Amino acid sequence: MNTAIILVSGGMDSCVTAASAISDGYSPAFLHVNYGQRTEKRELQALHDIADAFQVQDRLIVDITHLADIGGSCLTDSTIKVPEADLENSHIPVSYVPFRNANILSIATSWAEVLKATAIYVGAVEEDSSGYPDCRRSFFDAFEKTIDTGTKPETQIKIITPLITLSKKEIVELGIDLKAPLHLTWSCYQNENLPCGKCDSCALRARGFEQAGVKDPILI
Amino acid sequence: MNTAIILVSGGMDSCVTAASAISDGYSPAFLHVNYGQRTEKRELQALHDIADAFQVQDRLIVDITHLADIGGSCLTDSTIKVPEADLENSHIPVSYVPFRNANILSIATSWAEVLKATAIYVGAVEEDSSGYPDCRRSFFDAFEKTIDTGTKPETQIKIITPLITLSKKEIVELGIDLKAPLHLTWSCYQNENLPCGKCDSCALRARGFEQAGVKDPILI
Repeated sequence: MNTAIILVSGGMDSCVTAASAISDGYSPAFLHVNYGQRTEKRELQALHDIADAFQVQDRLIVDITHLADIGGSCLTDSTIKVPEADLENSHIPVSYVPFRNANILSIATSWAEVLKATAIYVGAVEEDSSGYPDCRRSFFDAFEKTIDTGTKPETQIKIITPLITLSKKEIVELGIDLKAPLHLTWSCYQNENLPCGKCDSCALRARGFEQAGVKDPILI
Repeated sequence: MNTAIILVSGGMDSCVTAASAISDGYSPAFLHVNYGQRTEKRELQALHDIADAFQVQDRLIVDITHLADIGGSCLTDSTIKVPEADLENSHIPVSYVPFRNANILSIATSWAEVLKATAIYVGAVEEDSSGYPDCRRSFFDAFEKTIDTGTKPETQIKIITPLITLSKKEIVELGIDLKAPLHLTWSCYQNENLPCGKCDSCALRARGFEQAGVKDPILI
């Protein structure tokens, strides 16, 4: 049984991604990063709840709060306000953390090479996302080439993005099909007790459940 | 004046790389990482000494000791012995820290994007190096493509590797030409007071000075 590293933030997309990896036959290892996001405590709880639900033993929690020191995003810089959702706008939002996914994938690759894992699963979504440049498949393809050139010759690691072409509606539907524990996930960028309902992440999630004709279990 | 991020370990190669960047006309910002290496305390002192010598104000010290938790290298895993030098052997040595340079370059890119820097200088050496896969120019080319796809469209960052084709002898000579403060650098993987003289890094440095016909100023 091959091992896959799954990037698990604790949100809905990463939960469905974990369910996908398990459904594809991989033994999962969960990587979670604390990059100084406002809601880290709640996300970490969601990570452990989801790992418990899937009976995942291998959990690596990594602190990369230097990204907060570097700044440049409303998610990590408290002087920049989290804006209300603007899903029609295609410019790069202030919640973009510069090159965040490359930082996370580099850690995942280091761990994968030691565990001899053959895949890294990432719950990135290209359509219906907030337009982050490091969430596009072209970025993951480039990173895969970087892995090929920068690791031992015998290391073979694919980056698998099962949600990349899905809408939030389809992610909700896939999660329900795969019996992913969506009730344990957390998506809000702003709050840790009740979802704010106003940030990009809340708005996308709400629209996904609405279009799928399903009630969001965390709001029930 | 464009800004360049320089990866500065505190060793001779990174010191000469910094001198190159300054000679190329960049305003330098120094990035140093603590990845759990045995000699971090001594390296950090060298970093600050070199930065003082070059009057560099922007210094970012980042802790990525999770690479030590992940393990897999004698530099970070105290259960793996630092071997004596074997410069004729071309296999990947146990001092290889899996995908270390991608982790460091990701941080450098995040910082570069915030500072609007246009270059990242890396003192990697392909020939006469210890055969790490993430020290080859092909790796840096792949990473540069990853930066292009994973950052904002207006972000343009080159990875410059001024030493990549040089031998240690040529690096010593270039350092002397550029008046790099080689007496402030530290290279040993093993010790923090006197260089052990036996590890790969000491052996390469000693051979470089010997071939250049110059005495190593840290041994005088």
